[in-house]
Amino acid sequence: MIDELIQILGREQVLTGMENLVPYSFDATSVFRQIPAAVVFPRTSAEVSAVLKVARRHRAPVVTRGSGTGLSGGSVPSPGSIVLCLIRMDKVIEVDTRNFTLRAQAGVLTQAVYDAADAVGLFYPPDPGSMKVSTIGGNVAENAGGLHGLKYGVTRDYVLGMEVVLADGEICLLGNKCVKDAAGYSLRDLFVGSEGTLGIVTEVLLKLLPKPAARQTLLATYPRMDAAAAAVSAIIAAKIVPCTLEFLDSRTIRCVEDYTHVGLPLDAEAILLIEVDGHPAKVAEDAERIRELCTWNGASSVRLAADAKEADRLAAARRTAFKALAVVKPTTILEDATVPRTELARMIRFIQETGARHRLDIATFGHFGDGNLHPTFLTDERNADEMRRVELAKREIFAEALALGGTITGEHGVGLSKKAFLRQQLGDTGYSLLKSIKRALDPENLLNPGKIFDL
Amino acid sequence: MIDELIQILGREQVLTGMENLVPYSFDATSVFRQIPAAVVFPRTSAEVSAVLKVARRHRAPVVTRGSGTGLSGGSVPSPGSIVLCLIRMDKVIEVDTRNFTLRAQAGVLTQAVYDAADAVGLFYPPDPGSMKVSTIGGNVAENAGGLHGLKYGVTRDYVLGMEVVLADGEICLLGNKCVKDAAGYSLRDLFVGSEGTLGIVTEVLLKLLPKPAARQTLLATYPRMDAAAAAVSAIIAAKIVPCTLEFLDSRTIRCVEDYTHVGLPLDAEAILLIEVDGHPAKVAEDAERIRELCTWNGASSVRLAADAKEADRLAAARRTAFKALAVVKPTTILEDATVPRTELARMIRFIQETGARHRLDIATFGHFGDGNLHPTFLTDERNADEMRRVELAKREIFAEALALGGTITGEHGVGLSKKAFLRQQLGDTGYSLLKSIKRALDPENLLNPGKIFDL
Repeated sequence: MIDELIQILGREQVLTGMENLVPYSFDATSVFRQIPAAVVFPRTSAEVSAVLKVARRHRAPVVTRGSGTGLSGGSVPSPGSIVLCLIRMDKVIEVDTRNFTLRAQAGVLTQAVYDAADAVGLFYPPDPGSMKVSTIGGNVAENAGGLHGLKYGVTRDYVLGMEVVLADGEICLLGNKCVKDAAGYSLRDLFVGSEGTLGIVTEVLLKLLPKPAARQTLLATYPRMDAAAAAVSAIIAAKIVPCTLEFLDSRTIRCVEDYTHVGLPLDAEAILLIEVDGHPAKVAEDAERIRELCTWNGASSVRLAADAKEADRLAAARRTAFKALAVVKPTTILEDATVPRTELARMIRFIQETGARHRLDIATFGHFGDGNLHPTFLTDERNADEMRRVELAKREIFAEALALGGTITGEHGVGLSKKAFLRQQLGDTGYSLLKSIKRALDPENLLNPGKIFDL
Repeated sequence: MIDELIQILGREQVLTGMENLVPYSFDATSVFRQIPAAVVFPRTSAEVSAVLKVARRHRAPVVTRGSGTGLSGGSVPSPGSIVLCLIRMDKVIEVDTRNFTLRAQAGVLTQAVYDAADAVGLFYPPDPGSMKVSTIGGNVAENAGGLHGLKYGVTRDYVLGMEVVLADGEICLLGNKCVKDAAGYSLRDLFVGSEGTLGIVTEVLLKLLPKPAARQTLLATYPRMDAAAAAVSAIIAAKIVPCTLEFLDSRTIRCVEDYTHVGLPLDAEAILLIEVDGHPAKVAEDAERIRELCTWNGASSVRLAADAKEADRLAAARRTAFKALAVVKPTTILEDATVPRTELARMIRFIQETGARHRLDIATFGHFGDGNLHPTFLTDERNADEMRRVELAKREIFAEALALGGTITGEHGVGLSKKAFLRQQLGDTGYSLLKSIKRALDPENLLNPGKIFDL
C-alpha cells in the first residue's frame, strides 16, 4: 500500500516511520493518540481520489486532517489508517468581489480566508479560537464556531458549495454561487460537520459579507456571576445583538491575567467582553446602551476601548484564554457544552458545583451570546483517579446541558470525545438515522471510522 | 385502508369521493393533476405517525400538503396516494422572546409566523410570494425563498429544529434553541427542502431576529434593461446590501399596471424596487447613495416612498406580479431559474431572445439581489404546439442558467416540474447521492414518490 501511495504522490508526500508519524498521532484534545500507517500530503483532488482508491483496495481507513487543532479527536488516526493531510492544498482560488464569494482549497488557513476577504473590503465572520492555525477544511468538517456566533452564525452559514471526494474516489461538486438553491437535498449541509466520515472536502466556496464600517469594544467587570448573566439578558431584551459577547469566570480571569498581564481585575467573579459592529451611528448608540445596561445590572466597572489598539488588546486577552489555561496543569480538557442563552447562569452554577463536588479544577469561559460554554478541566492525565472524576463530571455536565435544552457540543464536533454522549442527545431514532446515512455514503466504513459513532 | 384511516382520525378528517378530492389534486403549478385515494387531516404528530403506519401496511404512497401553493408540483398527489394535509396542525406553540425563537406546528400560515414574531418586536424574514396563504411546513419542505434573500437568506437559514415523522412512523426531534450545535450530521438541514420525500415535518423551531428599526423604499425606472443591471452592480460594489432588490421587465410592468393601477411607467424596460432596512442613520445614508447610483446609471426616475403607506403600495405592486400575470392567459408557468448576481443581465437577455425564437409570451420578474429570476410563460395548455415550445424554451433557459453557474430552481423546489433537469445540474455522482439518501431513509419509497427524482 505504501508503495502504491508513493507511486501516486512521490516519496516526499508520503510519511512513514514512527518518528515521522508521531506528530500526526493526536490533535488538540491531547488525550487521544494513535499512530497511523502513513501520512500523505496530496496536492490535488485527483490525488485525493487516487489515495482513496488505494485505501479502498487495501481496506485501510482514511482519516482526513488539516492542522490538527480539533478539540474532539475528530482527526486522530484510526489504527492502520492513512492520514490524508490536506495542508498542501493551500490555494485561495478566487475572491469574487461582485458576488461576495471566496473559493479556496481545504488546506488554506482560516486566517488566510479572513485576510483575503478583508483585503477587498469583505468579511468572513466565523472565527474559531484556532483560526490562525486551523484550516478552512477542518472548520467545515467540524462546523467550527467562534466568537461571532450570536450575530453571524457558524461555518455552516457561510458554505455555499464544495468539492468533495466520496468513499469510492468519485469527485463531486456541490452548490454554487447562488444564495438561493432549492435543487434537491442539501448535500452540502450534510458534509458540513460530518467530520470526514462521509467524504473528503477538498475545496470550499464561501459566502462573504461587506465589512462592518465600525466596531466598539467594551469590558464589563462583575463581582457576582448572576449580575453578569442579568446584564446579558437585559442587552438581548433591548434587542441589541452584539457581534461578540464573551465571558470569563474568575478562575479563567486569574489565569489569563497571569499569562498576559493586561490588567484584568483579579477579584471579579465574571468579566464580559462585548463588541458591537455595523454603521457608526448604530455602534455608538448600542455601545452607550450596553454601557448603561451593564452598569444598572451591577457591573463594578465598564471600560470602553479608547481605540482599535485597546480593543485588540482586550479581545486578545479573551482569545488567549485556552492557551493561558493550558499552561496551568499538564492536561487541559476543553469542553463545549451549550445551552439556550436563558439557561446560562444556571448552567455555569451547575458546572461550578460539579467541579466542587468532584474536587476538580474547572475554569469556564465562552460565548455568552450564543450559550456556548467552555468548561475547561485543568487536570493531569497521569492521575487515574482524577481522570475518572473528570469523566463523571463531564457526564453530569452534558446531561444537564441536555436537560436545559442544549447540546453536548456547540462547536467542537463529536469526534471521539463526545461519542458516548451523542445517543442521549439525539435519541434512538435520530441516532439510527445518522448511521443509515453513513452506511449509504460509506458502505465499507473506511472514512474516519469510529468517529461520531460506532457502526 | 380508508376504514382504518377513519378509525384513527374520525370521519370528518378523511375525505374520499371524486368531488371532495378534486381540490387536492393539483397545486399552484396547475399543469400537474392527479386524484389521490384519500385526503386526511391529522391534528397531532401521533396521528401522522398512525397514518404512516396504515399507509405502509397497505403500501400506499403518502403525499404531504399544506395550502397547495407550491410551484413545482411537490404536493401533487401520486396515483393511489393518501394526501396528508397538515392545515389543522395550525398552532403557534411558543414565541420565546429571550432566545429569539418560535415553535409552530407545520400547518401554521407563514404570515401568522411573521405576525406572531412582529407582535413582540421580532422578525421572521423569509417572505415567499404566497406567504399569506402558504404554510410554514410547506416553506420548510420546499426551502422557500422570497424577496429578502439577498440580505436575510431563505427558510433554511431560520430552521433551528423540527419534529419529523419518519417513513416507519417513528417520531424524531431534531435540533434545539442553540445557534451552535455540532452534534452529528445536520439532519435538520437534510429535511429542509426534501419536499416530503424523507419524512413528514410536523413542527418547526424557527430563529427570529430583532425587528429592523427603520425601512426605506425606492422605485427606479429604466428605459434600458442593461442600465438597471449596471445600477444593481454599482449598489453591490458600494457594499450596500438592500433587504429587497426586485425587478420587473416591461411585459410584467404593463400587466401589473393593468391589474393594480398604481401608476407604473408603461414605457420602461425595467423597474427596480429597492428596500433598505436597519438603523435609521444607515437606512437614510444607504437610500441616498442608492438614489445617486440609480440616477448615475441611467434611471429615468427614482422615487423614494414618502411614507410607510406609499412604501407598502410600491411593494404590493411587486407582490401582485404573479397574480397580475396569471390573469393574462389561461395557463401561467412560473419558473425560477437562478444565476449568480453578476450574470443577471445576460440571463434576462437570453430569456427574451429565447421567448422570441420560440414565439412565446414570457414576462420576467424576480429577485435581482440574489439572482433569482421568474421567467413566466403566459400560455394556454390546450395549445399542444405552444406547450411543446414552452418545454423547449424551458430546457434552453435551464441549460443557460447552469452554464452561467446557476441553478434550475432558486426557491420553488424540484417537485415534478424540474425533475427532468436535476441530473444535469448535480452531475451523475451528486444525483446518485440523493437517491442513496432517499433509499436509506425511505426504503419502500412511500413518501412522496416520484418527486425530485425517480428511484
